[in-house]
Amino acid sequence: MNYRIDNLQYCKWSRKIFEINREANLDAVHVTIVYHEDYDELLIEIKKWEKLFNENSDLIFLGKNFKDIEKAQKENKTAIFFGFQNCSPIEDNIHLVEKVHNLGCRFMQLTYNNQSLLATGCYEKIDSGVTNFGKEAIREMNRVGIVVDMSHSAEKSTFDAIELSEKPIAITHANPNFWHAAKRNKSTDLLKILGESKGMLGLSLYPHHLKENSKCTLESFCEMAARTAEIMSVENIGIGSDLCLDQPDAVVDWMRNGTWSKIKNYGEGTKKKPGFPKQPGWFQDARGFKNLETGLKKVGFSANETNGILGNNWFNFYKNI
Amino acid sequence: MNYRIDNLQYCKWSRKIFEINREANLDAVHVTIVYHEDYDELLIEIKKWEKLFNENSDLIFLGKNFKDIEKAQKENKTAIFFGFQNCSPIEDNIHLVEKVHNLGCRFMQLTYNNQSLLATGCYEKIDSGVTNFGKEAIREMNRVGIVVDMSHSAEKSTFDAIELSEKPIAITHANPNFWHAAKRNKSTDLLKILGESKGMLGLSLYPHHLKENSKCTLESFCEMAARTAEIMSVENIGIGSDLCLDQPDAVVDWMRNGTWSKIKNYGEGTKKKPGFPKQPGWFQDARGFKNLETGLKKVGFSANETNGILGNNWFNFYKNI
Repeated sequence: MNYRIDNLQYCKWSRKIFEINREANLDAVHVTIVYHEDYDELLIEIKKWEKLFNENSDLIFLGKNFKDIEKAQKENKTAIFFGFQNCSPIEDNIHLVEKVHNLGCRFMQLTYNNQSLLATGCYEKIDSGVTNFGKEAIREMNRVGIVVDMSHSAEKSTFDAIELSEKPIAITHANPNFWHAAKRNKSTDLLKILGESKGMLGLSLYPHHLKENSKCTLESFCEMAARTAEIMSVENIGIGSDLCLDQPDAVVDWMRNGTWSKIKNYGEGTKKKPGFPKQPGWFQDARGFKNLETGLKKVGFSANETNGILGNNWFNFYKNI
Repeated sequence: MNYRIDNLQYCKWSRKIFEINREANLDAVHVTIVYHEDYDELLIEIKKWEKLFNENSDLIFLGKNFKDIEKAQKENKTAIFFGFQNCSPIEDNIHLVEKVHNLGCRFMQLTYNNQSLLATGCYEKIDSGVTNFGKEAIREMNRVGIVVDMSHSAEKSTFDAIELSEKPIAITHANPNFWHAAKRNKSTDLLKILGESKGMLGLSLYPHHLKENSKCTLESFCEMAARTAEIMSVENIGIGSDLCLDQPDAVVDWMRNGTWSKIKNYGEGTKKKPGFPKQPGWFQDARGFKNLETGLKKVGFSANETNGILGNNWFNFYKNI
């Protein structure tokens, strides 16, 4: 059985997008439901999702574990797995880890770009690694079954998380920095250790993580995937597209600035180009998985390996959460 | 005019304690009103204080600036200045800095013992200094008039705060570590730079910060003060007793553990001695200021210098907030 999984999307959700994901045969999508929201604000977001599930029950349902991916495939639906891009919903309270798991959370980043109470983000100058509270939180996430996601974290913090976590961690959406030296992309040393620990890398299709941004070619992307598979086992590579379809630019402003700054930060953008970047033509939305399939095979991946990258590897990872 | 100021108390407040502070002639006390509380929880604590002010209006009132210290002396009352020992009331929101100032906050620690969103606490292994949000927060605290308090912070973070803050910072309650090498006490290098920047050190009477703990002698304490005045100008030394009168041990447990840990942390205590330590006989409560006066003069401080340490230095610092 082959699965198609996009392990990171953050779209302005609508029936249209769920239909596109079905057209792309996605059996599962890990969706970001919050960035900097606290616990009470998380509850509001979850209510919105309850409405989406009710109104689109022919297309989507809340996924809780790998069996829901099997179920989704059988029923021609997409299982939606909840994740957070910052740890703000657990506030400073270890007991909220279990509560957010009960609400459906299956992935949580220890940091967004800045320092959090748990670890250091990739936009800070100095990385002190996983904090005292971070150690407690990782232990608790391991216990209840929330994946430690270090996509936006700084390097030492990520090494620490790999070492501290009893279960493999994930970098759900980032690319190797040998290909494109963005702050958010990851070093070869880190990817090696990630792979050895059975952690997953979800390759990102977000233009700021791509060589030549929106002009990145399918060939270049797939060659990067091939080189990444020389660093870490191909079985630890998947897709985390970071698709932000239909989001207004106010949303990327919120992602970058939350409420922490009076001065506007442009993150991966610039003052001249503050908004969401344009997707490359070959990956306008999840239907681009078809292009990825062609491209990955073209650079030498076997059918088996290609199916692994496009979903089976994430499926196996979910099995072990 | 001489003032008596204790620039840190965290007692289980009651009329009895306000009376003791009056008996000690304290014109002002900086009181800790929250540790790990968030903004909403802060509002609850402020309501409790409103009740205390109403019920004890013959003894205390809310202080907002140095003129309230003058007023307190004239009216034989004690001006109460609010402070936070952690930055949790501003959550992740820069706009809350002005709001907490409007509520009366005049001192805020950037960290308690652990990493915060602003800086690193003295109980973390690695100190990454003031964070991105921390830089914004310091700028905003300077603007609205909240003193940056680094009593519980790690060293690099404190150096950073001194450098970043346009106004002098304070270490409201700690001692030099040349005298007693506790994690909470401060290095000679740091005290030098603090003094040069016109920042204040409030000497602590909390037994865990004292040489030989509860058995510390008045002589030893005052000799330490004399040696500290060789490191930093005597004008930058005051008292921040850290008195926790009548607090049940559950409170020290909250201070140390907040809600971040499932494993009990004993902080400066131990498993065998988890509770509040006993005050030394010569400083059972603020009436010990009288003993300090005698002791400080005995080690060679002039009357002027002694009055400075016991309150005038803090008064001058408040003048410049």
